[in-house]
Parts: sequence; C-alpha cells; structure tokens
Amino acid sequence: MREPILFPLDLPELSVELGGGTIRRTVHPSGLRILTEHMPAARSATVGFWVGVGSRDEQSERSDAPGSLGSTHFLEHLLFKGTPSQDAYEIATSFDRIGAEHNALTAKEYTCYYAKVRDADFEHAVGSLADMVTNSLLDAEEFEMERGVILEELAMAADDLGDVASERFFEEVLKDHPLGRPIGGNPDTIRAANRDDVDRHYRDRYDPSTLVVTAAGAVDHDRLVEMVLAALNASHEERWHTDRAGVPERRERGNLEPVDTREAGEGFVTVERPSEQINLLLGAPGFVAGDPRRFAFGMMNSVLGGGMSSRLFQEIREKRGLAYTTYSFGASYSDAGLFGIFAGSAPEKTAQVIELSKQELAKIAADGITDEEFERSLGQIAGSSALALEDTETRMGRLARAELGAGELYDLDTSLERFEAVTADEIKAVATYFANTPLTVVAVGDTGKMTR
Amino acid sequence: MREPILFPLDLPELSVELGGGTIRRTVHPSGLRILTEHMPAARSATVGFWVGVGSRDEQSERSDAPGSLGSTHFLEHLLFKGTPSQDAYEIATSFDRIGAEHNALTAKEYTCYYAKVRDADFEHAVGSLADMVTNSLLDAEEFEMERGVILEELAMAADDLGDVASERFFEEVLKDHPLGRPIGGNPDTIRAANRDDVDRHYRDRYDPSTLVVTAAGAVDHDRLVEMVLAALNASHEERWHTDRAGVPERRERGNLEPVDTREAGEGFVTVERPSEQINLLLGAPGFVAGDPRRFAFGMMNSVLGGGMSSRLFQEIREKRGLAYTTYSFGASYSDAGLFGIFAGSAPEKTAQVIELSKQELAKIAADGITDEEFERSLGQIAGSSALALEDTETRMGRLARAELGAGELYDLDTSLERFEAVTADEIKAVATYFANTPLTVVAVGDTGKMTR
Repeated sequence: MREPILFPLDLPELSVELGGGTIRRTVHPSGLRILTEHMPAARSATVGFWVGVGSRDEQSERSDAPGSLGSTHFLEHLLFKGTPSQDAYEIATSFDRIGAEHNALTAKEYTCYYAKVRDADFEHAVGSLADMVTNSLLDAEEFEMERGVILEELAMAADDLGDVASERFFEEVLKDHPLGRPIGGNPDTIRAANRDDVDRHYRDRYDPSTLVVTAAGAVDHDRLVEMVLAALNASHEERWHTDRAGVPERRERGNLEPVDTREAGEGFVTVERPSEQINLLLGAPGFVAGDPRRFAFGMMNSVLGGGMSSRLFQEIREKRGLAYTTYSFGASYSDAGLFGIFAGSAPEKTAQVIELSKQELAKIAADGITDEEFERSLGQIAGSSALALEDTETRMGRLARAELGAGELYDLDTSLERFEAVTADEIKAVATYFANTPLTVVAVGDTGKMTR
Repeated sequence: MREPILFPLDLPELSVELGGGTIRRTVHPSGLRILTEHMPAARSATVGFWVGVGSRDEQSERSDAPGSLGSTHFLEHLLFKGTPSQDAYEIATSFDRIGAEHNALTAKEYTCYYAKVRDADFEHAVGSLADMVTNSLLDAEEFEMERGVILEELAMAADDLGDVASERFFEEVLKDHPLGRPIGGNPDTIRAANRDDVDRHYRDRYDPSTLVVTAAGAVDHDRLVEMVLAALNASHEERWHTDRAGVPERRERGNLEPVDTREAGEGFVTVERPSEQINLLLGAPGFVAGDPRRFAFGMMNSVLGGGMSSRLFQEIREKRGLAYTTYSFGASYSDAGLFGIFAGSAPEKTAQVIELSKQELAKIAADGITDEEFERSLGQIAGSSALALEDTETRMGRLARAELGAGELYDLDTSLERFEAVTADEIKAVATYFANTPLTVVAVGDTGKMTR
C-alpha cells in the first residue's frame, strides 16, 4: 500500500515527483511554510495565502470579547481595504486589470486569500496578496463602511433557505462545539463588533508561524520563496520579519472518536419561513478528519447519495418525483465532523422523504452495497477526482489543507488504493453507525404545511 | 484587423490552426454538424450534443398547445429517462461510474446535453449521449414522475428571490417577445403538459439538421465524426438516419436595431415577498447578438459594473456599504437583448441604490471613461477570457454558440483586437443610449419597507 506524503514541521525542504508534476515544500526558520505543485503543461497558476485561523477560533482564551463572533470573517473583508502602499480601490484595480479570479474565504478552521492568474501575471498577484496579508491598515472609517457590507452579506444568506438550513444544522448537530457556530457571526455580533477586537485578532493570529502560502500550475518554487520572504521582510509590521525563529502552528487533531456533543434523542427543528419548498437536512455527528473509517464512509456516501445513480436520488427523485435535489454528504474537521442528507421538497412530501432517507441508510446497514455499486463508486471517485485535479485551484487548495491539517497529503493514486481496499464489512459498519444514531432533522420553510 | 473564423453552412470541411490547437468542422450532407477543438496538452475532454431549439420556440406555428410552455425543458428531463437499450438508472450509472461531470441545460435559443470526462472515457460518453438524444422513449409513466420533479424544480426557483427577479425582469423588459418567457414554463403549464406535446416537439425538432455536436480537449475529430454517424444510423428512429440529405438549420439573425418591445415610460414592478434584502434589477432592451456596438458595450459594461474596481461596486458597496453584491450585465440573443444592473440591499437603501446606478450610467454617458479604465477593462477581458479558455467546457460551448448563432467564431486574439479598437466616443454613445432609455425596475422582496 502506498503511503501519503508527509509534511513534518521540522523538515526544512521536501521535493516529490508526482504524476508528471513536482511538489516542493519549504519550512522557513521563521515558521513560514511555502508549498508548490509545478504542473508542466500549465499556462496559469493559482496562489493562496492561508492562515490557520477560522471562525471556530473566535471566543477562545485569546479573544473573548462579545463582538468577536464573526471577527475572522470581518478581518477577511478588511484585508481588501488598504495598506500604506495601496488603498482599497488600488487593490481592486490591481486584480481586475489582469482579469484575475481572486477572492477570499473564511472557513471554520482557516482563512484563505487567493488569485488565479495567467503565468505572466503570477508575480504581480503574489505581490498584491502579500501586501494585503502583511500590511493591512484596518482603517477605522473603512471598518464602519464594511460593517454595512457584512450586514448585507448576512441578510443575503438569511434570504437563502438552503443557507439557513445549513447553518442551523451545524448548530443543532454540534451544539456548543465551536464548530457549530456560523462562520460570519450574526447581525447582533456584527453590530457590536469594534475595530480593536478585529485588530487584535489580526495581530495575534496572523504571523509567519500561522501563514501557509501554496501555489499550483506554472510556478517556480524557489522564486516564490524568495518573493514571499522579501515581502514579509518589507512589511511595516515587525511581527512579519523572518529573522526571528518561529514554530509553525498546526491545529492539533482531536479524538478519533466523534465528539458526541448531542443530547440523547432525536431532535426535530423547524424554522418557519414562507416558501414553496422545505429545505430539509437530516444528520448526526460524523467522523473527524483523520478517522480511519473515512474511506469506507466515502464509499458508503457515494452509494447512498453521491450522484444520479445513488440510492437517495433513485428512490426520492427518480422513482417518486418527490424532490429535484437530494444528496448525502460528510464534513470533517480536526476534532468533529458531520454526516448529513439534504432534500428540497414540497411540505406535504417531507414525511415521506425523511422516511425514505432513513430506510435507504438502514438498507445499507443491513445488506451492505452490491459489487456493482462498489465498482461504480470507485470509478466515480477516480474520475471526478482526476477531473478536479486538472484545475490549479484544486491542487493549490489540496496542498494547503494537507499542511494545515494533519500534515499528510494523499495524492490521487494513494487515496484510490485506500478506497479500493475498503471491505464490504467496513461499509456496512459505517452505515450501521449512522443508522443506529438518532438523527437530527432541520426543516426550513413553510413548516406549518409539513407532514411529519 | 483579424477576421472571425466563418462557418458557412455549405462548407463540408474546415480546419484551422489556432493558438496551439486545431479547430475542425464537418458539415455532413444530412445536415449534421460536428465541430472539435483539439488541445494538445489536455488529458480530458468535454463533449456536447446541442440542438438549436429553446424555450423561445415553444408556441410557434409548429407547436401551439396550451401545455407547450416549458416543453423544451420537460423534454430535456425526459431524455435522461430511458432508451430501448438503457433505462434511466443505467443512463445515470453510465455517467456516474466514470465520474463524469454531466448535465443538460435548456436555454432560450438552444438545448445542450454534455459530459466532461477523462480522455479514456470519451468514447463511452459520446455513446451514452448519442443514445439519449436519438433514442429516448419518453415513456408515459416516466413522464408523470418527471412532472413532479419539474414542479419541485420550479418550486426551488420560486424560493430563490434572485431567480424570481431575473425571470420577472426578462418578462417586463421584453414584454410579449418569446424571449421574455421563463425557460421552464410555470406550474400551470407543467401541470397541463401532456406527453403528446413533448413527443411532437422531440420528433419535429430533434434531427440531423438541428443537431450540432461539439467537443474540446483530448479529441480526435475523425473518430468523433465516425462515432456520431454510426450512432445516428443505428437509431431506432428513421429521422436520424444520415442517408437523406438535409439542410442544417441556423437561427436567422434579427434586426440589428434592438427590438423595442416596451411601452413608453419607466416601469417600476414590485414582487412582495418576506425578505431581508430587496433583489433589485434595473435595465432596458439591449443589443442583439451581432450588433456592431457589442465591443463598445463590453468595455462600457466592464467599467460600469464588471468587477471590484468597477464604478457600481465602488460607489454602492465600497464607498457607502449599501450592498454586498452589485454588477451590470448584458444578454444577447438573435433578435433581442437586454442590459441590466443588479443589486441586493436592504429595503431602506433601495432608493439610493437606484439613484446611484442611474448616476453612474449618466456619468459615463456625459464624460466617457478614463484611459486607465480603458486599459484596465482590456486587461480584465484578456485575462479572464484566457483563464476561461483553459477549460475544455468553455471551448466546447464556444464552438456550439458560434455554429448555432451567426456562424462566426471570434477567437481570443480576434476579439481582443476589436475591443482594443473601440473608441472613447463609441463607449460614450453606448452609455448615452441606455442613459436616455427609460429603465424598467424590478424589485423582489419586502417591498412594503422599500423607499422609492
């Protein structure tokens, strides 16, 4: 069996040939980490500046101010608002004039600022991103303006019933776990947010030991290392200078048993909103990122709700016309995870959809999957992963998640071997695990009309 | 000035070298057209089966049944439901087991069935798509089941305020023009739909003269032609056999002056829905697909609302925090087009957003754009187009739209030359055209709270 590529924190340099490309990794004495995947045929590249800090880290011992919920996401917005050398308009212009696909995202365990550009524009993009990440002013006036923008962003999400269901599902399944909180905070915490909290968050958590720069496509590793080091040392903020030794930060992995954060018993939560459809989520705590059952889960999930030929799609949509969209999914974090089933359907069909969902899960628990389903799931994972990895953005993200996560990168062949080695019993065991767990149900929409 | 690549209907074979790749086109005596773009470095390919029939063609002289609205989209669904050699489950399995990204889309002027796959799976995907397109049974029981699925799809769209605003905007701006109708019909027409209407639509409009097969990536043109011809001749339906001569169908291009389908005067339409935000669209009839002003429009649109540095984004979001999302856009069809501005913002901010939108348009009309804006727009169009064209799906779609449209393909360099040649006066003239047109406003949400 092949082994994953390991990224030990005390290994200064690493180079691995991989399927036509080369992965390289540098751990600088300052704690800064830079990882690249050179793809010989690529004429473009994606570069990301990642910080291993997400919404789950708000209201920790380091930051317990009332306005801190949503501060990670608030900070992400503010990094676009100006540095001593470029104001917000110049930052926007800097990416627009090269037609970059650029954006930022705040997740539960990390924050990322990235740009996808033509090869000739790569150095320009790196320079702009480095300036934003290391030199942002968090200007007080811009802070107030951005408060309004973020309130509009939350209002937009509040009007999206799927978003509402998803946030509520995390809250109900993970309860008081920090991963259960919404990423962006809520209107009250954003109204209460103040510049000092966000500024402290920036100064406390953004430095070379938390920064991971990854790039994939038409990239030159040595040149990128040189550029990033130069940018950090040119920062107006001393904490970025790389002459001091630092220890790279990596989130510790939690217990390999799922954190059982739920009260015993099945929860059924409704959020009443005028609507045509109920946005329905059923699920339970799932597996943490490193759980050895993750490959069996991947196969089970593919058969249960992973495509048009999956059991949920066939039973709920194709045989009965009860929904347009239905699928199952897993989400894994360092010390908690979720398993869920989604369906959108008319209120009077909800009860039947819930019943069918549980039935299909129970069937796999009782009888396992067929050989044909096993082969198909393997093929689906192999094909869709290969297509996804053509994109420089996917590879850039894969490097960062491996580095910020367990420090292990499963390349495509290695992970396919693991999926192939999953046994029928392991798949049944995973389905049984969830079939025997009381499922939380979240229903958002015109729930008064719902059958239960 | 470079010229576009022309696709005359009476030219049986064409081959053009283009930026490292090769575009080839075959027009078969049966009317069937096949176009490919070979990309030497590609390890995957996207193939699409296109039919030049869209929602605008419903309720024409050929089909005026009351249940016909939405029949094009209904047919698209049914093509996944089975042929004599594979039932719906086998079709789903056929794509899932290779991890294909496959789907179909019904637009206003065409319908497309496509799959993106690894190179080794290409022939398999072509076989499956060809079978669906030429041999579908439109089984009566499957028809009834799919009616429920489509009603759920419409319900999902009805819960999305952005979708509601967009459909209403088309209706209000284009009035009784067939392009103004929603693509999927509405719940009443779907409840009234019957199998005979959809079946007649399939038999009348799907044949070699309306079929365009396009592929990009790791493709062999001659082999694709051979495969598609073999599939058509193996069809259970004689109309697909390619031994009879046919004339390829291409939609006639309408008047180059925008169709003025509006009543005189400014319309302000509200759709009341409980919401946090108003989904706001302002706009007017725009330019048809071949309009010579389209390059000037592209530059004007980029400056007005084409990115984070655009005037709308700066004035509405960055300087005032009134919205999270705002942009401008154009949509062009063979004989009508639209120009629009979108913003999502709290009801009490709506009046200001409308005012600012009109002001920014008027400013470009009065003063034009700056040299810096001109250069930036060119760079943005060049960069984003180059990145988009890395995807085999983009190139596959480009070939089909050129063939089904005017029969002209502007490759990247040719179109960039046209953008570069736009004059300051032409840009001002385009802005003036819209600044002097009464704009229709559509507002969806809690409009009772709205300021006007």
